[in-house]
Amino acid sequence: MSYWDTIVIGERVEIGSHRFEAADIKRFAAKYDPQPFHLDEDAARHSVLGGLCASGWHTTAVWMRLNVDSQTARIRAFVAAGNPVPKAGPSPGLKNLRWLKPVYAGDTVTFSQHVTAKRKSASRPGWGVIEFSCEGVNQSGETVFSFDAAAFYGTD
Amino acid sequence: MSYWDTIVIGERVEIGSHRFEAADIKRFAAKYDPQPFHLDEDAARHSVLGGLCASGWHTTAVWMRLNVDSQTARIRAFVAAGNPVPKAGPSPGLKNLRWLKPVYAGDTVTFSQHVTAKRKSASRPGWGVIEFSCEGVNQSGETVFSFDAAAFYGTD
Repeated sequence: MSYWDTIVIGERVEIGSHRFEAADIKRFAAKYDPQPFHLDEDAARHSVLGGLCASGWHTTAVWMRLNVDSQTARIRAFVAAGNPVPKAGPSPGLKNLRWLKPVYAGDTVTFSQHVTAKRKSASRPGWGVIEFSCEGVNQSGETVFSFDAAAFYGTD
Repeated sequence: MSYWDTIVIGERVEIGSHRFEAADIKRFAAKYDPQPFHLDEDAARHSVLGGLCASGWHTTAVWMRLNVDSQTARIRAFVAAGNPVPKAGPSPGLKNLRWLKPVYAGDTVTFSQHVTAKRKSASRPGWGVIEFSCEGVNQSGETVFSFDAAAFYGTD
């Protein structure tokens, strides 16, 4: 059995939750997104966002970490069951990234993904593309972030 | 004169260059994208990417930093010339993010953006949306990354 065959269109997986702490929000922002509403509580309170909140790129980076950890655990379990090690490749990109609500300091976001399509590559024999939709939902049930992405996997 | 009026459809701005060092690539990846081709030279050499390269999310985070620095400098110069402080808001999101080529350790990427549309918001008086395309080009002239984005600005 190949790992490719275990991925089913329509499956929905929760990949984990993360609480965004003020110190982490500021640390990420100081390096990659030094805007006042990501750096300082007082400045944030007087900004259009109304409070200290994570850079949108911090939210996507945390999603990526949970995604890698979740995938790694799934692949390890697959291999531990006596199956061959799957090939996985880089992502060609993503579409429709939306930051729908601010992620405030202290918010906990739960991330999930939903497989929407899979197809074998015509140009790269032995490889295929999985398409999936991702979203992050905060502790109040509000969707804060979503996007549609794709990833390459070996099909053999 | 409002800052809004200074933004012209068709303008292309180079926002800066960044050399991706192996140590930074590994540091970002260890925290947010711990895949072998972002973490370890030997593992990367034997991977589908052929060498240590930056997480796609590292590339976007560096773009964001150069974008914020470039915007801040432009707004400071505008205000220093006696104009009112512009209002700037959060990004609603982006489309068509593509990682076209790996960004290898030691590569220098030059980032630019190109204004493609501007419109006043119907639902939020005093605000408007600027649309722009961004790209990153490496030292060999290859486009490694591109996307289409939008940002809110005050129009008054």
